[in-house]
Amino acid sequence: MKTQILVSHPQIKGSGTQKFLETTGKYFSNNFFESIDLTYPDGDIDIDTEQDRLREADRIIFQFPMYWYQAPDSLSRYMQDVFTRKYVESQRALRDKELGIVVSIGDALSQFQLGGSEHFTLSELMAPYAAFANKAGMKFLPIFPVEQFSYMDESQRLKLASDYAAYIGAEQPFSLVGRTEWLTSQLESIMTKRENKTAIKLIIDSINDRKDRIDDLQENIKLIRDEEE
Amino acid sequence: MKTQILVSHPQIKGSGTQKFLETTGKYFSNNFFESIDLTYPDGDIDIDTEQDRLREADRIIFQFPMYWYQAPDSLSRYMQDVFTRKYVESQRALRDKELGIVVSIGDALSQFQLGGSEHFTLSELMAPYAAFANKAGMKFLPIFPVEQFSYMDESQRLKLASDYAAYIGAEQPFSLVGRTEWLTSQLESIMTKRENKTAIKLIIDSINDRKDRIDDLQENIKLIRDEEE
Repeated sequence: MKTQILVSHPQIKGSGTQKFLETTGKYFSNNFFESIDLTYPDGDIDIDTEQDRLREADRIIFQFPMYWYQAPDSLSRYMQDVFTRKYVESQRALRDKELGIVVSIGDALSQFQLGGSEHFTLSELMAPYAAFANKAGMKFLPIFPVEQFSYMDESQRLKLASDYAAYIGAEQPFSLVGRTEWLTSQLESIMTKRENKTAIKLIIDSINDRKDRIDDLQENIKLIRDEEE
Repeated sequence: MKTQILVSHPQIKGSGTQKFLETTGKYFSNNFFESIDLTYPDGDIDIDTEQDRLREADRIIFQFPMYWYQAPDSLSRYMQDVFTRKYVESQRALRDKELGIVVSIGDALSQFQLGGSEHFTLSELMAPYAAFANKAGMKFLPIFPVEQFSYMDESQRLKLASDYAAYIGAEQPFSLVGRTEWLTSQLESIMTKRENKTAIKLIIDSINDRKDRIDDLQENIKLIRDEEE
């Protein structure tokens, strides 16, 4: 599966969050990053190149910091210029592709609700992108928020790396079993390139062992439910 | 009351809708129009000038055609640059002002609902601007949609002009009585400058006559309701 990540960030070079995500994403194959702001500093977008590249993608990610509850202006301009009516509605060039949103926020996620300082939920605020996916015949993925990256400790960042890698690369839906299989396959592909095969083999065995136990648990839960009915 | 209308439209010179709205709005005093795209063609916004001007306004209007369910990029850039955290959150410079949205759409408004081709309502799609108003301590006005302007006939355009003039200039809330009083005061101010005073006086009398009849009706409805309780 090919994933095209479109990053919109006016100060991308100074962004620790974006650097972290790009390093994580590039560790795996088939993830292609493009910073709209760095590629087109004067805003003069090469429409043909962009349209052709997106045709090749199975999953498209809009990745950005939230500026006043929207993406920065470079993504707006990109959408205006590249997503022509001809491309999206006549040619249906994006049909059946997936659209994901990776949005980093400086406030706590818990503030995005009624009674919170931000009042609206992320689902409400990202509605324009969901509406675009609807119009383009794309499947809109659950939003992936990156919450207060600068406050994260090492273990939280490791978890973010693992979750993010799965979000951009693993098959939908993001079930526990699906993610485990994806992680195992990624580790196996890494193992063939590395020297410390024994360590990676141990990790894979450990993951599979836990997966087996989860499968057992799920089977037991199913039995109990069946008896109750 | 002073109203500052910020127009975001990359091809504003070719827009019949924007020309019509601007002509209507400029007919009345205290409405100030600014095309972000014409004032800052290179995107280099004069932040101090903009911040100072907005301090003077009682009502601020974001006016734009909907491009993929959002405003064009010039409004995003304007908000990023002019609405600094210091200005909005520390100085509270926009507090208690009103924020209105005038959004022109090429599809029928009836498509903006579950089951319609656009799937989402205008209220859902404009949530980022309502979230901004919430954060800035502004009062968010009901959205003013301009639906398929190019298909409108003369009488529909006259109605649009009257509704739009009230939206940007009349006191909140937009009740029938409040609007009638606003319209009468506007006509009286026009009458002092014009020669055809008799004609305008006739219109004012006609409006006031209808207003009296509406007042009577409302009084009757109130009496019936009171009896029912």
